[in-house]
Amino acid sequence: MTHLIDALDSPRTIASTVSSRIEGFLDTKADEFAAISPDADDIGQALFEFTRGGKMVRPVLLWWGFQLAVGDDPDWERLKPGVAEAAGSLELLHAAALIHDDVIDHSDTRRGRLALHRQFEALHGRHRYQGDDESFGVSAAIVIGDICLALSEELFETSQSTLGITALTRELRATLRRDVMVGQYLDVLAEVIPLEDERLAERAWEVLSFKSAKYSVEQPLLLGAALGGADEEQLKEISRFGLPLGQAFQLRDDVLGVFGDPAATGKPAGDDIREGKRTVLIAESVKNLSRAQAHILAKRLGDPNLSDTEVSECMAMLTDAGGLEAVESSIRAKHEEALSIVREWATDGAGAQASRTRIGPAVQQQLTEFAETLSYRKS
Amino acid sequence: MTHLIDALDSPRTIASTVSSRIEGFLDTKADEFAAISPDADDIGQALFEFTRGGKMVRPVLLWWGFQLAVGDDPDWERLKPGVAEAAGSLELLHAAALIHDDVIDHSDTRRGRLALHRQFEALHGRHRYQGDDESFGVSAAIVIGDICLALSEELFETSQSTLGITALTRELRATLRRDVMVGQYLDVLAEVIPLEDERLAERAWEVLSFKSAKYSVEQPLLLGAALGGADEEQLKEISRFGLPLGQAFQLRDDVLGVFGDPAATGKPAGDDIREGKRTVLIAESVKNLSRAQAHILAKRLGDPNLSDTEVSECMAMLTDAGGLEAVESSIRAKHEEALSIVREWATDGAGAQASRTRIGPAVQQQLTEFAETLSYRKS
Repeated sequence: MTHLIDALDSPRTIASTVSSRIEGFLDTKADEFAAISPDADDIGQALFEFTRGGKMVRPVLLWWGFQLAVGDDPDWERLKPGVAEAAGSLELLHAAALIHDDVIDHSDTRRGRLALHRQFEALHGRHRYQGDDESFGVSAAIVIGDICLALSEELFETSQSTLGITALTRELRATLRRDVMVGQYLDVLAEVIPLEDERLAERAWEVLSFKSAKYSVEQPLLLGAALGGADEEQLKEISRFGLPLGQAFQLRDDVLGVFGDPAATGKPAGDDIREGKRTVLIAESVKNLSRAQAHILAKRLGDPNLSDTEVSECMAMLTDAGGLEAVESSIRAKHEEALSIVREWATDGAGAQASRTRIGPAVQQQLTEFAETLSYRKS
Repeated sequence: MTHLIDALDSPRTIASTVSSRIEGFLDTKADEFAAISPDADDIGQALFEFTRGGKMVRPVLLWWGFQLAVGDDPDWERLKPGVAEAAGSLELLHAAALIHDDVIDHSDTRRGRLALHRQFEALHGRHRYQGDDESFGVSAAIVIGDICLALSEELFETSQSTLGITALTRELRATLRRDVMVGQYLDVLAEVIPLEDERLAERAWEVLSFKSAKYSVEQPLLLGAALGGADEEQLKEISRFGLPLGQAFQLRDDVLGVFGDPAATGKPAGDDIREGKRTVLIAESVKNLSRAQAHILAKRLGDPNLSDTEVSECMAMLTDAGGLEAVESSIRAKHEEALSIVREWATDGAGAQASRTRIGPAVQQQLTEFAETLSYRKS
C-alpha cells in the first residue's frame, strides 16, 4: 500500500518534546544517583546541563523517519511517547560521544561553554580537592561519558515497551552505535598517519561517512523508519536520501571547523587545524600543494599552540590549493543528490513506489528546508 | 512450588562455554570492523586478546543465578546459548570498565600484560605513527572501551531472542550498569578528597558496595535469576547471599591491592597505595593513626613515584594501625553471613521456602567452595 504523508511535525516541536522527555528521564536518574551517594549529585547536574542546547538533528531525523514509515497512523498519539524516547536516546548517545570526543581532542569548549572535562577540572578547584585537577577532569569525563552512554541504552530500551522491538531495529541500533565509535577510532588514527600517506583521502571519506554522515543523518532516519515498521525496500529508499545528505552535512562541518565564525560555532577559529583533523578538506587540498607547502601544513596540523597568523596561513593554503572549492562543489553535488530523491518521493514515480510513501507538497518543503539547513548551516 | 537443585554447572565448564561464545561474537564483529576500514582491524584483535584470561566471576554467577531459578528445567538445553550470551555480555561490560579504569588510574599493566592504552601506545611506536604516543594510546583506549561497552549491550540484546525480556530483567541490567559506573565516579572522587574528611569510611563503603560488591557478585546472580524467571521474593533471598559475599570479595581485593603478591595479582606490589585508592582498608587504618602518621600516609597515597621502601612503610602502617586485621575480620564476618544463607537453602528452613529453591548437598558444596575462592583468593 502506498500512503500519502501530508505533514511532518516541525523540528521545533520535535526538539521541544524530546528535550522534555530527556529532562524528565534525567531527573529520575539524578535521584537514583543521589540515592547511591550525595557525592553523585554532580553527575546528574552535569548531564542535565550538557544535553541542553544541542541542535537535535538526530532526534528530528529519527522522528521523521518514523512518520514517513507510519504515514497517517491513527495510533500515532499512543506511539509518540515511545518515539520521543527513542529519539532522546540518540541525543544522549551523541552527548556521550561528544564528552569523550572532547577529552580525546583536548577541546576546551563545547556549545560555547566549557567542555565537560574542563567543567570538572574547574569543580576540582572550587571544592579545593587534592591532586591534579586536569587528571580529575579527564577521569570524571570518561566515567560520565560512560554513564551517558548507558543512559542512552536505557532510554532506548524504555521506548520498546511502547514501540516493540524487532530484529531489524535491534540491528540498526547496533550498527549506528558501532559506526560512530569505529568512525571515531579511525578519526583518532588518521591524525597520527603521515599527511603523504596514499590512503589519506580514502581515510578521510571513511571517517566522514561512518563517524558522521551515516550516524548523524542516514541511520537516525533508518532507525526511525524501522521502528515505524518500514521494510528493507523502504529503508533502501531512505538511504538514497539520507547518505548523501549526511555527507553534505559533514562536509559543511569540515568547512566550518576551519573557516567557521567562532561566535556561531562555539569553537575557536581554525579549531580543526589545531586539532589536526584529517578531513576531506585537507585531503582535497594536499593533492595540489607543493612539497614545501605540504611540509608546512603537515607540521602545523595538530599543533595546539599555533598562532592566529599561522592558522590564517593554513586557511589561505587550503583556499589557494582549491581544497575549499572542491569541498563546496561536493556539498552542492551531494545536496542536489538528496533533493532529487525528495522530488521523486513527491511524485508518483519510481521512488514513491519503491518507498511506498508519497509525500505531499508541505512535506517536500519541510525536507528541502531541513536539508538546506544541514548542508548550508552557518554553525 | 519448591524445587530441588541437585547440581550447578562447574565454573570451569561455564567459563569455557562463555569464552567460546564471546570469541565467536568478537570474530563476527571484527569482520564488521574490517569491512568498514582495514584500519579498524586492530580493534577486533585488541578486544579478542583483552577479553581472554579473565576470571569470569560474573558470568559464572549469572549462570548459577539462572540455574537456581529454573531448577531442573527440561528446556535447559534450548536456553543455554541465551544464558551464555547474557553471561558473556557481563564479561564484555567488565572488560570495558577495566579498559577505562586503567586509563583513569594510569595503570601500566592488566592481567600480567600491558594495559590497553599502553598496548596502543606501543603500537604507535611500532607503526612509526606521528604525534604523541601516550595521547594516542589513551584516545584509542577510550574509544575501544566505548566499543566494548556497546558490544556488551549487543550481546545482551542477542540473548533476548532466546530468553525473552521482561521489565524486571531490563531494570536489573540497567541497575547493574549504573551502579558500577556511578561507583567508579565515586572512586575517582574519593581519591581527591582529604584523608581527614569525616565521610572517609562511608565513602569507602559506597565505592566498595556499588563499584564492586553489587556489580560483581550480587547483581550477576540477580540478573541470572531474573532471566530464569525468579520473582521479587526469590531475588531478595539471593541478595541476602550475594551482597555480603560481594563485600567479602572486594575487601579481599583491597587487601590484595596492597599486600598481594605481584606474581599472582599481575599488578605491582602496593599498587593501590601508588594509585591512592581510598579503600575500607585505608579508612579503617586512618582511625588509629597518629596525626603525624596520617600526614605521611596522606602525602604518599596517590604518588606514583613512591619507592618500594616507602610503600613498605605504608604497608607496615596499615598493619600496625590494625586496619588490616579489621578488614580481615570483616571478610570473615561477611563470608560467614553468606555461607549461613547457603546452609539455609540446603535445609527445609525459612530460606528455602522464601527462595522456593532447595539446594542439594552437591550444590551446597559448590557454592561454599566458590565463596571460599572469592573471599580468600590469592590473586
